[in-house]
Amino acid sequence: MQLDTGDVMYNSLTPAGLRRTLFTGLIAISISGFAQDDLIWNALDVENTVYLEMQEGTVVIQLNPVFAPKTVQHFKQLLEDQFYRGTSFYRVIDGFVAQGGDGSDLESIEPTKTLKAEFEIDWPLKPKDKEEAKNWQPMSWTPVQTDDLFAAYTGFIDSFPAARDEEKGGKVWLTHCPGTVAMARNDDPDSGGTDFYIVIGQAPRYLDRNLTIFGRVVWGMDVVQRIKRGPALDNGIIENDLERSWIKRMRLASSLEKDQRLNIYVADTNSDGFKKMLEERRNRKQKFFYHKPPEVLDICQVPIPARLEKPDVDRS
Amino acid sequence: MQLDTGDVMYNSLTPAGLRRTLFTGLIAISISGFAQDDLIWNALDVENTVYLEMQEGTVVIQLNPVFAPKTVQHFKQLLEDQFYRGTSFYRVIDGFVAQGGDGSDLESIEPTKTLKAEFEIDWPLKPKDKEEAKNWQPMSWTPVQTDDLFAAYTGFIDSFPAARDEEKGGKVWLTHCPGTVAMARNDDPDSGGTDFYIVIGQAPRYLDRNLTIFGRVVWGMDVVQRIKRGPALDNGIIENDLERSWIKRMRLASSLEKDQRLNIYVADTNSDGFKKMLEERRNRKQKFFYHKPPEVLDICQVPIPARLEKPDVDRS
Repeated sequence: MQLDTGDVMYNSLTPAGLRRTLFTGLIAISISGFAQDDLIWNALDVENTVYLEMQEGTVVIQLNPVFAPKTVQHFKQLLEDQFYRGTSFYRVIDGFVAQGGDGSDLESIEPTKTLKAEFEIDWPLKPKDKEEAKNWQPMSWTPVQTDDLFAAYTGFIDSFPAARDEEKGGKVWLTHCPGTVAMARNDDPDSGGTDFYIVIGQAPRYLDRNLTIFGRVVWGMDVVQRIKRGPALDNGIIENDLERSWIKRMRLASSLEKDQRLNIYVADTNSDGFKKMLEERRNRKQKFFYHKPPEVLDICQVPIPARLEKPDVDRS
Repeated sequence: MQLDTGDVMYNSLTPAGLRRTLFTGLIAISISGFAQDDLIWNALDVENTVYLEMQEGTVVIQLNPVFAPKTVQHFKQLLEDQFYRGTSFYRVIDGFVAQGGDGSDLESIEPTKTLKAEFEIDWPLKPKDKEEAKNWQPMSWTPVQTDDLFAAYTGFIDSFPAARDEEKGGKVWLTHCPGTVAMARNDDPDSGGTDFYIVIGQAPRYLDRNLTIFGRVVWGMDVVQRIKRGPALDNGIIENDLERSWIKRMRLASSLEKDQRLNIYVADTNSDGFKKMLEERRNRKQKFFYHKPPEVLDICQVPIPARLEKPDVDRS
């Protein structure tokens, strides 16, 4: 299963596999950067992991309470209230976003509670009180690109793609990449409430700093891509209930029994192994490349490795 | 149906539709730039249009004989020979590419004929002989971005996303965007033969100038997104035949009866209406934007409008 954008980072390719494809050059590229001994894998925090269950399959979303504390808190309350049970993806534009929630009725539905915008935060992060200061660990920035088309700096913060405006300090925000989960809103920046969208196409980076990104899909983007599309001529809105993908339920991982949870591990973007992978992607030396690609990286085209471990697998 | 990457460019949004979504800001953006009187629509050339039929649906691909004349010629021969009938997408990595053809068997299959690389061409184009010079019409470049992350210049040439290296002259090449169709190959640049891939994820622009792009999906990207994915752990290769998406047949439009063809029209990227749309996307003035986005455009995030006309629709 593919976990994020871009070519896959890890595999157990057999010689048979190599024979079976003409795309061997790219396979070689794909292999490189994996099997790094110094790639650290982090288990997902059950208090900030969401299982979105649909007929199409299960999608695992990692929440980001650092960038969107109030939105995450509110979202978790909605999960507890089973708000999304039986709602649907009612506006789905291929190559852009899949938007879900209860906004699907024929009448206008005002969200019961609207949320203050959480578009960006100060960088570097500071503890908000003395209590937090006691065990304060500054977050790490893993640089990806300077003078990216949309921002002065792009990089990863704890496995989330992000961007910044100043070399030191300034603001930092999460970027709109495939798999990004954010709150929908209308013109008022503080008008988000319940309905959310998942980016399913080429990164709409022009939305950065304009919507509250509060999570990202870490597992099941292939499932997300099966969400039924709406007609472009009606802006992706799917009138017919039967033609929509429905949300069976959406739950916080901590509310599931342990044996119901998926053992997903996400690569630590601050680990040496990940940084090495970035470097190999930036500076592609494989024979395959007739023209050496420019030594640049698109933050949204860097896959963050994730892996699923079966409970019976020995992890030693 | 969405036609290309990015948000949809045209719609017939009703007030009811507006009420029904919280994402009104983005809707407003989507509407803008459409209903341009000066947007020219081109019918597809039946000699360079391909129908890819799968259980998932039909995909329409526009070939580009200007950038890849030999590959297109060869591909059309393969279509005539019904080469792809009963082949499959055997390597599909979500967020990256879907690769199809006959390379799926357990043994290595050498392509019967390999193709010279057609990675880039000279710019501006020149007639290749006196005959062609007689009716020569220079191709137009519709600029999109200067100092794009991967190229000095990006723009459109006859509704294909492209990039260039020098202000005047130099080389020009088609870019890897979602929907791009290109020949797979191994390390040898001239080793492509029959198997091809469609880009299904964030633009892998590092592949630009390294593979022969010979077409793009103009209709049915939502169908392409339903192609069954392979396991990332085996580099997307789908061992089990039953788990693959199969190509029923792939045909040139001119080989179909007229009433079997889809009346698809693609926006002329050189028309004033399209240029106006580019300008509105570059300089977003809608109230929705709390932070005005940088005045830049990602060539792969500019949708090229396409529309399907039913035969019984009055086009006047």
